[in-house]
Amino acid sequence: MHPNDPALRSFIDVDPTSDFPIQNLPYGVFSIADTSPRVGVAIGDFVLDLAAIEAEGLLDLGSNKGIFAQPSINAFMALGPKVWSSTRARISALLRHDNPALRDNDALRARAVLPRKELALHLPLAVAGFADFYSSKEHATNVGIMFRGKDNALQPNWLHMPIGYNGRASTVVVSGTKVPRPRGQLKPPTAEVPSFGPCKRLDFELELGVVIGQASPMGGMLTEAQAEESIFGFTLLNDWSARDIQQWEYVPLGPFLGKSFATSISPWIVTREALEPFRVHGPAQEPAPLPYLQQRGANNYDLHLEVNLLGAGTSRPVRISTTNSKLMYWSSVQQLVHQASNGCAIDVGDLLGSGTISGPEKHQRGSLLEISWNGSEPVEMPDGSKRSFLEDGDALTMRGWCQGDGYRVGFGEVEGTITPAV
Amino acid sequence: MHPNDPALRSFIDVDPTSDFPIQNLPYGVFSIADTSPRVGVAIGDFVLDLAAIEAEGLLDLGSNKGIFAQPSINAFMALGPKVWSSTRARISALLRHDNPALRDNDALRARAVLPRKELALHLPLAVAGFADFYSSKEHATNVGIMFRGKDNALQPNWLHMPIGYNGRASTVVVSGTKVPRPRGQLKPPTAEVPSFGPCKRLDFELELGVVIGQASPMGGMLTEAQAEESIFGFTLLNDWSARDIQQWEYVPLGPFLGKSFATSISPWIVTREALEPFRVHGPAQEPAPLPYLQQRGANNYDLHLEVNLLGAGTSRPVRISTTNSKLMYWSSVQQLVHQASNGCAIDVGDLLGSGTISGPEKHQRGSLLEISWNGSEPVEMPDGSKRSFLEDGDALTMRGWCQGDGYRVGFGEVEGTITPAV
Repeated sequence: MHPNDPALRSFIDVDPTSDFPIQNLPYGVFSIADTSPRVGVAIGDFVLDLAAIEAEGLLDLGSNKGIFAQPSINAFMALGPKVWSSTRARISALLRHDNPALRDNDALRARAVLPRKELALHLPLAVAGFADFYSSKEHATNVGIMFRGKDNALQPNWLHMPIGYNGRASTVVVSGTKVPRPRGQLKPPTAEVPSFGPCKRLDFELELGVVIGQASPMGGMLTEAQAEESIFGFTLLNDWSARDIQQWEYVPLGPFLGKSFATSISPWIVTREALEPFRVHGPAQEPAPLPYLQQRGANNYDLHLEVNLLGAGTSRPVRISTTNSKLMYWSSVQQLVHQASNGCAIDVGDLLGSGTISGPEKHQRGSLLEISWNGSEPVEMPDGSKRSFLEDGDALTMRGWCQGDGYRVGFGEVEGTITPAV
Repeated sequence: MHPNDPALRSFIDVDPTSDFPIQNLPYGVFSIADTSPRVGVAIGDFVLDLAAIEAEGLLDLGSNKGIFAQPSINAFMALGPKVWSSTRARISALLRHDNPALRDNDALRARAVLPRKELALHLPLAVAGFADFYSSKEHATNVGIMFRGKDNALQPNWLHMPIGYNGRASTVVVSGTKVPRPRGQLKPPTAEVPSFGPCKRLDFELELGVVIGQASPMGGMLTEAQAEESIFGFTLLNDWSARDIQQWEYVPLGPFLGKSFATSISPWIVTREALEPFRVHGPAQEPAPLPYLQQRGANNYDLHLEVNLLGAGTSRPVRISTTNSKLMYWSSVQQLVHQASNGCAIDVGDLLGSGTISGPEKHQRGSLLEISWNGSEPVEMPDGSKRSFLEDGDALTMRGWCQGDGYRVGFGEVEGTITPAV
């Protein structure tokens, strides 16, 4: 059976609402107690230690022995799509309910099948470069209306290319990492001169991240098919944003310190192959993109997304956004094709953020800037307080999953708690 | 004697116009024939193989044996300023005219002192992150006048902070690397819709690059002194720019594909210590920067810069720019302090570009956009042709040096030849 077959069952019981059934098998990096970080896949409430399984001779990676005994998935990704596929098939086979190889080897199970709750999860990839896009038409329009008015909401270039900018790779962190409130230059419209201090308009952005597993040389370009083949998998991404720092600094060279203080991603990289059954066409693109950007494939995913905010000192989270990545105007494939179109070298470990994923409905807005409509419609919290932007101690959690028939293929969560400015 | 002492002489003869006297000792990465790339320092027309010298026991780096037998200087940089300084002093002592240790060891000299012309020079550092700034007031003003008119030339934020953006590390290449003309979306003001094709307005930007040798954690900030201590050295940098791609894409998120196709740097990283005698104060800063950006030190350098253009099919280069890095409004230290001010993590191997260094005089303009004043005053070439922007086959060379009394401390050159779009 293909590893995506809905009929597959693992010998580990997996709840139908779990993000990690045998049809998923996302990659992460974990450690337990004082052992070295290594690569594993999530299965139900457990993690399968791939380094242990490989050392046991149950995964044949040819000359690449020890490739999972490393603190990132980069070396594995560099082996290419055929190895990604064959390795996933082998892991799937090992976890099947009817395969005794691992199931009945108690000693190996004790070493290699570890309760997820007992593990520390690390950043799964060494991020080579990080580029962030602006792929949701609704998000670009919402922000445009707030800052430039309804008539100039969408810039003239927006419908012609996936607008993007280079972000900062050094502060991409894994879910659970505390996010210190950034300081920076602030100049509200009412102030004559800027001052330096803690950000007062701290926001999140709900994004889908693409993890690149194949390099492309400087001077090259990628077709739709090549770009797709280069994509190893996906991650949920929170592009934390200091709106006040951003607003004062961003003309004319774009976002810099308003974004570079932190970007959080999910600990689990869901493979492109695992998302295959959930492919859908994105919105119609009018005008038709230039030939290099045209896509024949259904390059979007029917991926449910939600955001919960647990206010500081409160005990009940508020769901502040419910949306879907299928709404993205520019697909991840188009983002990558565009990024490489000028001859820019693409590296194993590159990360591309989609930009905030909003939708046409109010509940589908993917940032507080939009949810609170620039502070004019604050979120009501259970303790009676209000939120236009994030406060110290607030904990924000994103989740995402594709719904199969009786199972989910999900990302786990991206959580970040705001700590006071240092 | 201190390694910067003007009276020092090496046992290798060095011409007074050479960039590489014993007072310099810049670091690079080289290979010869089919040996592995390793670290060396330039001395006159030679390169001292530090891996060979260290293996011979002439450089004591404690437990860090083999640290120069690597294809980048990153591991050495990570050892910190005290080791940078002691190692430079030791190399200086080894090269002195009156020290027989290396001078009279013919076998070792044959292995470790190699003619520079016979070597391949590689990218000296593994670039962790690349940020590019906009630190020359004259450049920002010139570009502002061309694109927004005289009254709105300088944006309101410009005098308050070193404006910058994240660039692309994957296409930072060493001098001598061919630069393929990028393709991209072009939409001249006269066109209704964009088209995709080879860039028609290909430009260079003359910049000073700062190489960071010490990390700073996420959530931290750097003082002036800490930022300075983090700087390992400097490189000349050509921030190749596709003006037409940039013009159409850059609103609102800044330069992306207009810059990310190539950035060339000099093969030699001149240490901060070697530039110490050439420190000068930069231009007065009015209004005074906010306290976190204020500097007490003389953080600019009296560094002569020149740019030569050898037109395709011509045999005589034209000098198209003569300027000086002391004109920079925002110093490299201020750039780094600003970049870290929001808690952005700083990595060993980070590269910061100054932005185009122009001056108040016409001959001091550091880009063709400014030199040709957006195409209205093209450069006259020896064969009668004209250049508003770069043509295929054009070779552009930057040079930079500080002038001592009877010697120069220089960077060598940054050369790049334009090849046709692939």
